[in-house]
Amino acid sequence: MKIALDAMGHDEGPAKLIEGAALALREFPDIAKLFLTGDTPRLETELKRIGCNDRRIQIVHCTQIVEMNDSAVDAVRKKKDSSVSRAVDLVKAGEADAIVSAGHTGAAVAASTIKLRTLPGIERPGIAATMPTETNLFVLIDAGANTDPTPRQMLDNAIMGSVYSRHVLGYANPRVGLMSIGSEDEKGNNFTRETFDLLKSSGLNFRGNLEGHDLFENPVEVVIADGFTGNIVLKTSEAIAHAIFGWLKHEIYKSPIYKLGALLAKPAFKAIRKKTSADEYGGMPLLGVNGICIIAHGGSSPYAIKNAIRMAVESIRHELNPHIVQEVKRYHESSPAPHTHATT
Amino acid sequence: MKIALDAMGHDEGPAKLIEGAALALREFPDIAKLFLTGDTPRLETELKRIGCNDRRIQIVHCTQIVEMNDSAVDAVRKKKDSSVSRAVDLVKAGEADAIVSAGHTGAAVAASTIKLRTLPGIERPGIAATMPTETNLFVLIDAGANTDPTPRQMLDNAIMGSVYSRHVLGYANPRVGLMSIGSEDEKGNNFTRETFDLLKSSGLNFRGNLEGHDLFENPVEVVIADGFTGNIVLKTSEAIAHAIFGWLKHEIYKSPIYKLGALLAKPAFKAIRKKTSADEYGGMPLLGVNGICIIAHGGSSPYAIKNAIRMAVESIRHELNPHIVQEVKRYHESSPAPHTHATT
Repeated sequence: MKIALDAMGHDEGPAKLIEGAALALREFPDIAKLFLTGDTPRLETELKRIGCNDRRIQIVHCTQIVEMNDSAVDAVRKKKDSSVSRAVDLVKAGEADAIVSAGHTGAAVAASTIKLRTLPGIERPGIAATMPTETNLFVLIDAGANTDPTPRQMLDNAIMGSVYSRHVLGYANPRVGLMSIGSEDEKGNNFTRETFDLLKSSGLNFRGNLEGHDLFENPVEVVIADGFTGNIVLKTSEAIAHAIFGWLKHEIYKSPIYKLGALLAKPAFKAIRKKTSADEYGGMPLLGVNGICIIAHGGSSPYAIKNAIRMAVESIRHELNPHIVQEVKRYHESSPAPHTHATT
Repeated sequence: MKIALDAMGHDEGPAKLIEGAALALREFPDIAKLFLTGDTPRLETELKRIGCNDRRIQIVHCTQIVEMNDSAVDAVRKKKDSSVSRAVDLVKAGEADAIVSAGHTGAAVAASTIKLRTLPGIERPGIAATMPTETNLFVLIDAGANTDPTPRQMLDNAIMGSVYSRHVLGYANPRVGLMSIGSEDEKGNNFTRETFDLLKSSGLNFRGNLEGHDLFENPVEVVIADGFTGNIVLKTSEAIAHAIFGWLKHEIYKSPIYKLGALLAKPAFKAIRKKTSADEYGGMPLLGVNGICIIAHGGSSPYAIKNAIRMAVESIRHELNPHIVQEVKRYHESSPAPHTHATT
């Protein structure tokens, strides 16, 4: 399989991307070719720095970079020679099977959606974030691609999330829950109540509404939310985990006894930090575009980049998109969902 | 001052409410009378059990209890002799200054809104949850009273949250942020973009959009969200904190060395658990109703109930509602905000 890495899209430039690429090449022999899109001299310098001369690497030179303050759609229209655009072009041309980008999320979503188009039956793509509970992994979809979806688009996300959970994460019959503010059926806002009805009659393994503590105490494998709510759940969760570990550290530094205790218990802390770290999951697939697109954090470590590339490898290996097309078709044939309009 | 405690509204019945009431009476000499609404024999038994015979207590007998699966509005209409309805009636009649309820949140919101009405200039009340950062406290408003507000109602919440922060929490010039999915001005969904413009031209100390990590790293004192989003932020934050401590505990039990370490560092853990515990803040004022209404968790400890009563005492002492009325009037006179319609 062939993967295109947006080799300039990272908060700190290409260094960590290149290190992550080298890790992935070592770990995944399935990768036949890894395209690196970006500034050739810079990328060559980075490859030399880490002593990587893997012959599967092919640099695709381009001259532009999407900056964080660029608007997503402008970036696609005006920066045609950007590293993310060129990576998507490779998939469009059939030269690569997947894009991995840790750059401007909006630009990666827009470039993939505009250039690759959506899969048959899908109106808008959704970002699927993988999150841990004590006993399982769930995908939260949509983590930010579509901030004002229609209920029908929410249903499509539920179908796509279920396919991802089944075929890539390996859950035989993933349970689906709707992010809301209480577990009773009537809880929520006007939009979630409309979505609830559609999910309930969908034939999916729908378990109703769930609220914060259900995510961890009564876990399901697929959590549905609009892109605004999903993004807030994801970022708030990361922020709380980060804040708690930070506060604990400051508290522990107040006494040498606490410090000694923390030192003894360090492996336990590390296990939980690892579990709650976004690096473990590395990337978030943008489900619904006609090609594999994995979105990674702008501050990804090399390890996170390697994991994002792993996610691309697994999505290709498990034929994610053909399965999505088949399932969407099956659902819409068996229960034609009414087309509804966005709540704007 | 006189306070009415919904003495039946708790997941486990009246026991913890009565213990909390006794703690509050000991700590707050300002309380001249504490009404307990509920079943007289049960409440008397509880008072006897803990040896409390404070003469400031007055039981107001009532025969009904709002159950968790009752609908909020039905509860108010059909259970006129419920403990929460009777507590609100005491405020309506001028016999009490504040209600404290740890029962069905929707019923407390509906009873207060229907019976007490809203303050002049306020269309809908909002729940203000107090949350900690490392260095300050912020109020998140609305934490769940109004799941489909208009931008104008969001502005009212921003004004009320600022008054609460200034007069009750003591911040001289509280900064206001809008919960969104990126800190740039244009980030968000259709609804937050409309709200953003209204907040920007309001004359409040508005600092723009904020996302998860900003809550803790670039804190403001007042965080504005619709009741759906706010409730999800609040509950997800609590759930993540709870999950992390639970995971850590299980990890620590895997080795006697880790256990010893955790024992030595225990005071540091306890300090953080206390900081992240909802018990510390005890209750959430329902801002915008014509009377003080404090909403507490259904599973509140006696300590949390005492803190919820403290919140009522402080809201009365600092003349919260007169300040809100004055500020709302001032804002709407200086910059008449357009009336907009709910996004339904």
